[in-house]
Amino acid sequence: DEDIIEVLGSPKMERDKYEDNETAGVVTGLAWTQVGGDILFIESILSKGKGALNITGNLGKVMKESATIALEYIKGNAGELGIDPEVIEKYNVHIHVPEGATPKDGPSAGITMLTSLVSLYTQKKVKKSIAMTGEITLRGKVLPVGGIKEKILAAKRAHIKEIILCEENRRDIEEIKEEYLKGLKFHYVKEMKEVIDIAILKEKVKNPKKL
Amino acid sequence: DEDIIEVLGSPKMERDKYEDNETAGVVTGLAWTQVGGDILFIESILSKGKGALNITGNLGKVMKESATIALEYIKGNAGELGIDPEVIEKYNVHIHVPEGATPKDGPSAGITMLTSLVSLYTQKKVKKSIAMTGEITLRGKVLPVGGIKEKILAAKRAHIKEIILCEENRRDIEEIKEEYLKGLKFHYVKEMKEVIDIAILKEKVKNPKKL
Amino acid sequence: DEDIIEVLGSPKMERDKYEDNETAGVVTGLAWTQVGGDILFIESILSKGKGALNITGNLGKVMKESATIALEYIKGNAGELGIDPEVIEKYNVHIHVPEGATPKDGPSAGITMLTSLVSLYTQKKVKKSIAMTGEITLRGKVLPVGGIKEKILAAKRAHIKEIILCEENRRDIEEIKEEYLKGLKFHYVKEMKEVIDIAILKEKVKNPKKL
Amino acid sequence: DEDIIEVLGSPKMERDKYEDNETAGVVTGLAWTQVGGDILFIESILSKGKGALNITGNLGKVMKESATIALEYIKGNAGELGIDPEVIEKYNVHIHVPEGATPKDGPSAGITMLTSLVSLYTQKKVKKSIAMTGEITLRGKVLPVGGIKEKILAAKRAHIKEIILCEENRRDIEEIKEEYLKGLKFHYVKEMKEVIDIAILKEKVKNPKKL
Amino acid sequence: DEDIIEVLGSPKMERDKYEDNETAGVVTGLAWTQVGGDILFIESILSKGKGALNITGNLGKVMKESATIALEYIKGNAGELGIDPEVIEKYNVHIHVPEGATPKDGPSAGITMLTSLVSLYTQKKVKKSIAMTGEITLRGKVLPVGGIKEKILAAKRAHIKEIILCEENRRDIEEIKEEYLKGLKFHYVKEMKEVIDIAILKEKVKNPKKL
Amino acid sequence: DEDIIEVLGSPKMERDKYEDNETAGVVTGLAWTQVGGDILFIESILSKGKGALNITGNLGKVMKESATIALEYIKGNAGELGIDPEVIEKYNVHIHVPEGATPKDGPSAGITMLTSLVSLYTQKKVKKSIAMTGEITLRGKVLPVGGIKEKILAAKRAHIKEIILCEENRRDIEEIKEEYLKGLKFHYVKEMKEVIDIAILKEKVKNPKKL
Ligand SMILES: [Ca+2]
Ligand SMILES: [Ca+2]
Ligand SMILES: [Ca+2]
Ligand SMILES: [Ca+2]
Ligand SMILES: [Ca+2]
Ligand SMILES: [Ca+2]
Ligand SMILES: [Ca+2]
Ligand SMILES: [Ca+2]
Ligand SMILES: [Ca+2]
Ligand SMILES: [Ca+2]
Ligand SMILES: [Ca+2]
Ligand SMILES: [Ca+2]
Repeated sequence: DEDIIEVLGSPKMERDKYEDNETAGVVTGLAWTQVGGDILFIESILSKGKGALNITGNLGKVMKESATIALEYIKGNAGELGIDPEVIEKYNVHIHVPEGATPKDGPSAGITMLTSLVSLYTQKKVKKSIAMTGEITLRGKVLPVGGIKEKILAAKRAHIKEIILCEENRRDIEEIKEEYLKGLKFHYVKEMKEVIDIAILKEKVKNPKKL
Repeated sequence: DEDIIEVLGSPKMERDKYEDNETAGVVTGLAWTQVGGDILFIESILSKGKGALNITGNLGKVMKESATIALEYIKGNAGELGIDPEVIEKYNVHIHVPEGATPKDGPSAGITMLTSLVSLYTQKKVKKSIAMTGEITLRGKVLPVGGIKEKILAAKRAHIKEIILCEENRRDIEEIKEEYLKGLKFHYVKEMKEVIDIAILKEKVKNPKKL
Repeated sequence: DEDIIEVLGSPKMERDKYEDNETAGVVTGLAWTQVGGDILFIESILSKGKGALNITGNLGKVMKESATIALEYIKGNAGELGIDPEVIEKYNVHIHVPEGATPKDGPSAGITMLTSLVSLYTQKKVKKSIAMTGEITLRGKVLPVGGIKEKILAAKRAHIKEIILCEENRRDIEEIKEEYLKGLKFHYVKEMKEVIDIAILKEKVKNPKKL
Repeated sequence: DEDIIEVLGSPKMERDKYEDNETAGVVTGLAWTQVGGDILFIESILSKGKGALNITGNLGKVMKESATIALEYIKGNAGELGIDPEVIEKYNVHIHVPEGATPKDGPSAGITMLTSLVSLYTQKKVKKSIAMTGEITLRGKVLPVGGIKEKILAAKRAHIKEIILCEENRRDIEEIKEEYLKGLKFHYVKEMKEVIDIAILKEKVKNPKKL
Repeated sequence: DEDIIEVLGSPKMERDKYEDNETAGVVTGLAWTQVGGDILFIESILSKGKGALNITGNLGKVMKESATIALEYIKGNAGELGIDPEVIEKYNVHIHVPEGATPKDGPSAGITMLTSLVSLYTQKKVKKSIAMTGEITLRGKVLPVGGIKEKILAAKRAHIKEIILCEENRRDIEEIKEEYLKGLKFHYVKEMKEVIDIAILKEKVKNPKKL
Repeated sequence: DEDIIEVLGSPKMERDKYEDNETAGVVTGLAWTQVGGDILFIESILSKGKGALNITGNLGKVMKESATIALEYIKGNAGELGIDPEVIEKYNVHIHVPEGATPKDGPSAGITMLTSLVSLYTQKKVKKSIAMTGEITLRGKVLPVGGIKEKILAAKRAHIKEIILCEENRRDIEEIKEEYLKGLKFHYVKEMKEVIDIAILKEKVKNPKKL
């Protein structure tokens, strides 16, 4: 089997850096790996279609379920979110998590996916230099997730300034030495609506797609 | 494989607490794990569609079958349950069991899923501080399940006040020391209708969805 | 993996008891397990649809095939069985085998599934206190199955009075000590029609569904 | 796992005996197992539909492919076989191989499946006391198969009188002691048409289905 | 598991012999196995339908992909190949590789499948006593394949007279002792069109199907 | 299992050589394997259809996802790329990566697939003697990939003259001895648009397909 083209196991990449917030649907999440925390990006785009959801990025079952839940929540709350339900029906949405060589799973990208989709359907900017991690549920709650310490360290390395966490993860932050938290502002939330209020700006992105 | 994003195996969360009963479709169940009992929530929501059933939450085959059976039972008994059959046909229903990092399986969430769907289609409140565990069958019976002692202890920790069990699980309760049962009221049932009579209130939830 | 919700492996239930014959589609079968015989129930219900077949109960491939064969046989012999072919086309049928925590496989529930579906489509009662075990074939034959001794003992424990077996299983009964057979009446059959003649009564169930 | 219902591994059945030829679509094949030869039956039935093919009997991929090839060949040669192409389009066909507890695979039931389908679509009788074994190909050839000696011994035990084999299996017969062949008549064929000429009688079955 | 019907592992067959070229869609390929080379046949037939492609013969993923590529190439070059595009749309095509007991995989049957389909859609004869082996690509190239020496020996045993290979396999032939090559004529090609020019005759097969 | 036709494991082929740029949709990529770098080709063709995407070449999940992302990006930016959106809807596209005997996976062929599809939909030539490697994302970024050193050596062996890499792979090139880089021109990019600007010529291919 020496001849197999196996880019999946090829040399390591550098850790990611925060990027700008000029593109609708691009949001920064926080991930835990066995060798430390990392940031990851959720990207989403719309193309004309019939409301189909396509998910890529070498994702496991649970992470794909998060995308389903985020979309279902948006459908069920389109009015309050200022989203035209017809837009959801008339476009396909594709969610992608870059760095395909890394398998990814778990529910903790839930609020990041939610924010990505709300930005996409509203074409509004995501707040600058913000990152987030938290599970979502169908009824609109945000649930705590693990690996908080590693995720915070990764956020600092990536020049993140604000972080959204579940209220129940507050105690995890309180256990971290204060010097590691310098320069970071934390938002603790219980509801998915709070995430959107914090992360989605009123301003539209440059050259918003007309939906 | 050091670089795999593996939130699934990340640090443990706290045990769950009972939440309120203000949302249609949210019901508290009881679960058995190798390290003790726990409570779990069943959530369900409706979105316009054609009667499709979508199930998420890192569930195994048997637990998904329970959702199918609950929905089939409701279709077959819509009239008696006060549910308009057209509503079932005109909406998709999504059932979710939060905490995606934990794989879940087995038939014991059957009556919890049934109660969730009846609350959802009727937009009626679920009784406050109640939890339940029991297998369901197509013909409307409730079957006994295992792990009763651990489930009862978890219910107490979560401040549950009333519990619905199969009549055949009565003997399991009788084997538990009385001091562990203080403050808990038990309902033993044989039929799925009894579960609904006990758990579903006449009162609608706040801001019921118009179906 | 300590945190996995694993109800599938939870504490054992008691052996089943025979139940009444008031519900269309509910029939008692006999099963063989590595720790002895047991009875099992086949349940089926109809809901408006387009003739789809849905099968649940933690069943393996061969047991699902039995359900397919039973339904196909009924379609091919609807006239003789007094079933309106339009009913088969206008309803979906769901077959369930309770006790989802136990994986089940093998062809021996064939005649039980057949009897369940005939009772369902005709809304006729199944004979009281009868159980059965036997493989079915597309051409209407009943084939012998294994584990007869254990199944007979389980039937007695469950207060079964009559048992339908394949003619070729007669010798298995003849090898069992007579004292174990007391109070049991045996019907040996070669054809699926004989099963229906014996097991399906002329009387309709209470409150038959109008098809 | 002691409680698993595992009829698949249950006690052995007796060897099969030849049955009559009164039913359209029932044909006797020969099989090779690690403990000797056996006979098997191919059954098929039609039900109104759109030409779908359903295959059951605990079969592996290759044996299912044989069924596909037989049906495709019949479609391509309907005229010569005296089959109305509209019948193929207006009925679903279900092919079943009884004894679901035994997994079955391999291409050697090809000519048996072909004969079954031709008998089914023409409602003609299959020759009495005949059995067969041989692979089929899309272009109408019959290919040799293995296990001939064991298959012949099983055929004799089952009171088979005539056997159809591929011409290239003639040498396998010539290697068998003559005393084992007494009372058996062999037909060696190269083409699928020859199989049909030998095995399908002109006479219709009793009460032929009107197609 | 002694009772499993396992024809797949049954006694070996003799090596194949070349057959005639009277049937449209039947082409001889060359295969490499761990015990030496062998010839194999590709067969294809058309039946009325909607352009579906069905592939059988116990084939692996890569070999099935070859069939897809061949068909796609023909669709993209129908005009030049003298094939009416409507024919491709109005018929289903089934490709089969006989000897179902042998699993087969790899890309080397590509040019054989291409030739089979061109013969099928044009109903033209394939050149007599010719065999071939080579991978195909979507852009019409023929790529070299392995196992050339073993394949050549098998071709001679089967009385093949001409062989089509990729130009890049010429060096493999040059490494074979000349005595083994006596009586064989080689065609080295770079493009799929060259394969068709060499292998497909102008003459139609006897009783061509009217398309 | 000696008789298995196992071309997948057959003798090794020579390394690939660069080919011309006369065909729309054919682009040269760079691959990393455990025994060194290699070049690979991406091919794509259009056939009349409904916008379906078909992918072959023994590819893993991540590599297939790259194709999906490339196509989605093109759909979302058709206008800027000079592609008629109706063409994307009215044709099926098939992407193939030759050498089916070699399993291939990983995200690094992303920019190569993108270039292939843009060339295909515009029928424009790809720049001569250019190769490329880089992951793509839905939002139009190019991400760095691994195995750069081995890929560069393979590119030289194949007579490649220009190479497109992600800006973040620049440091990997700077670590390679200068003598190995002689005769190679590097293009470092951050955006997918830059790849297209560099790799796609204004000139159409000979005999462009009329779309
Ligand atoms: Ca990273
Ligand atoms: Ca996250
Ligand atoms: Ca919990
Ligand atoms: Ca429960
Ligand atoms: Ca039981
Ligand atoms: Ca049974
Ligand atoms: Ca047998
Ligand atoms: Ca056979
Ligand atoms: Ca062979
Ligand atoms: Ca070949
Ligand atoms: Ca190569
Ligand atoms: Ca590449």
